[in-house]
Amino acid sequence: MTADARAFSGVLVPVLTPFAGDLEPDAARFARICRWLLDEGAGGLAIFGTTSEGNSLTAAERNRLIDHLVEAGIPARRLMPGTGACAIPDAVAMTRHAVEAGAGGVLMLPPFYYKNQSDDGFFAYFSEIIERVGDPRLKLYLYHFPQMSAAPISPALIARLAKAYPGTIAGLKDSSGDWEGTKRLIAAFPDLAIFPSSEVRLMEGLGLGAAGCISATANIQPGPISRLIASHGSAEAEDWHRRITTVRGIVEAYPTIPALKAIVARKTGDQAWLRTRPPLTGLDDTRRDQLLAALDASGEPVEIGF
Amino acid sequence: MTADARAFSGVLVPVLTPFAGDLEPDAARFARICRWLLDEGAGGLAIFGTTSEGNSLTAAERNRLIDHLVEAGIPARRLMPGTGACAIPDAVAMTRHAVEAGAGGVLMLPPFYYKNQSDDGFFAYFSEIIERVGDPRLKLYLYHFPQMSAAPISPALIARLAKAYPGTIAGLKDSSGDWEGTKRLIAAFPDLAIFPSSEVRLMEGLGLGAAGCISATANIQPGPISRLIASHGSAEAEDWHRRITTVRGIVEAYPTIPALKAIVARKTGDQAWLRTRPPLTGLDDTRRDQLLAALDASGEPVEIGF
Repeated sequence: MTADARAFSGVLVPVLTPFAGDLEPDAARFARICRWLLDEGAGGLAIFGTTSEGNSLTAAERNRLIDHLVEAGIPARRLMPGTGACAIPDAVAMTRHAVEAGAGGVLMLPPFYYKNQSDDGFFAYFSEIIERVGDPRLKLYLYHFPQMSAAPISPALIARLAKAYPGTIAGLKDSSGDWEGTKRLIAAFPDLAIFPSSEVRLMEGLGLGAAGCISATANIQPGPISRLIASHGSAEAEDWHRRITTVRGIVEAYPTIPALKAIVARKTGDQAWLRTRPPLTGLDDTRRDQLLAALDASGEPVEIGF
Repeated sequence: MTADARAFSGVLVPVLTPFAGDLEPDAARFARICRWLLDEGAGGLAIFGTTSEGNSLTAAERNRLIDHLVEAGIPARRLMPGTGACAIPDAVAMTRHAVEAGAGGVLMLPPFYYKNQSDDGFFAYFSEIIERVGDPRLKLYLYHFPQMSAAPISPALIARLAKAYPGTIAGLKDSSGDWEGTKRLIAAFPDLAIFPSSEVRLMEGLGLGAAGCISATANIQPGPISRLIASHGSAEAEDWHRRITTVRGIVEAYPTIPALKAIVARKTGDQAWLRTRPPLTGLDDTRRDQLLAALDASGEPVEIGF
């Protein structure tokens, strides 16, 4: 494992994106949650991921939000924005902007409209972007989320990209939910930072060489996850593991993004957090009440302090 | 059927997009194929559809291509550009541009990244766009292509949108390949222009009240399909039906977009047409030779005259 590939480690958060009443991204609230997540120990901010409604934001909106975060004092090197897109020039524009802003890396989806495309086609896509950006500072993390993108990144493609762009391909987020497959990737690519998508696998993953995790539910429990990582190997870690697993289990029974936004709205007392961009919709009142009641009943204090 | 909803009828073509060596859209070649398709009798040009690699083009690229077509003398009212996008502001910008350029309509995908979204979410998406564009000239055709978009448009959603925006919702392209479902839509929505996605269903569809078809393979046989429509009800139409079905059957054995580009490249002698944007790749030489040999052996003269 090179130092470069370890630029990001620990718990990375696909930060929820707040929207104003006109559904414009709310840059001030966004900076506040980002600051809080870092203060709680997040190793990085994987902004514009799936949980962030990243694909519901235009390239220009994402670029402006990065600028705003940097102006607000968020360290750019801690940002790993999602910059994949169906159209190569959009992906190039976002990736270039992220690199020039000083982002520590980018998390890149393959193009996800055309289905059943070949490794050759995906290799050509990533190659075009890397070569057009043409910047040795670029650290690219591949984003494997076949259930959502319907565009799986095969181990053969990872190997081919890592060989062609060894200083650039830095890692992979594995949102497949296939833990056996994740373990094979960790073993097969010791020079890449592999991030499973759930904190529930952290205990085992850290022991195997995973770089950490990039998890939706890290939005609401960054501190407990950080403390699990800090105490890894001790009895305390077992306790954190149990607690974060309980919270994740409750949230997983609901549509993730509106559920997380409902929890943040409740815990901060700021109803603006309930807003989503279509096609996403909020939980209805009954489901929201059920979720919050289940969380209360668990006895796990989810504390959101911004 | 109102006159408005019938603004488009007959064979509409999701026009192939040519690319230059640097993978930029080639506006001059694009205008040439568009001109030829209209000369051959196309009732409209559904540019930036799936076959057009529309989702591999940015919003700005699509807008510039529309401007170029209009400057090149293509009647704007014959254009039905694809303006759906994952991010609402992109869809709004493209839709507004199309309307202001005088396009006769737009063909709109639902947002296609997030899966298993609700009719409420899709209704909110289309509503946002229609209301933000806020232009009575907008004629919106819904684009139902569940196998590719993974975002099906339900009959209940169509009814709800048609009721909420009766002057705007003009029709639907049904690329589901589910002919029984298409027939139900034609019967259920007599005020909407329903376009099946294959010329093979034209004979039957026209009799049932379909508005025509929007078909990938219309790129290579616009004249024969137009002649089928013109001779509908006569013995001549049966002959055209047989011939266009033969050609479509040959092409369907290959990945559609590179197959069509290979045929256009061969018939025009212009190898530039072979280029695709990643993730799409061209046919390999063997497959391309097989396709072209099968077409020659069919005895059907595919004539592309531009």
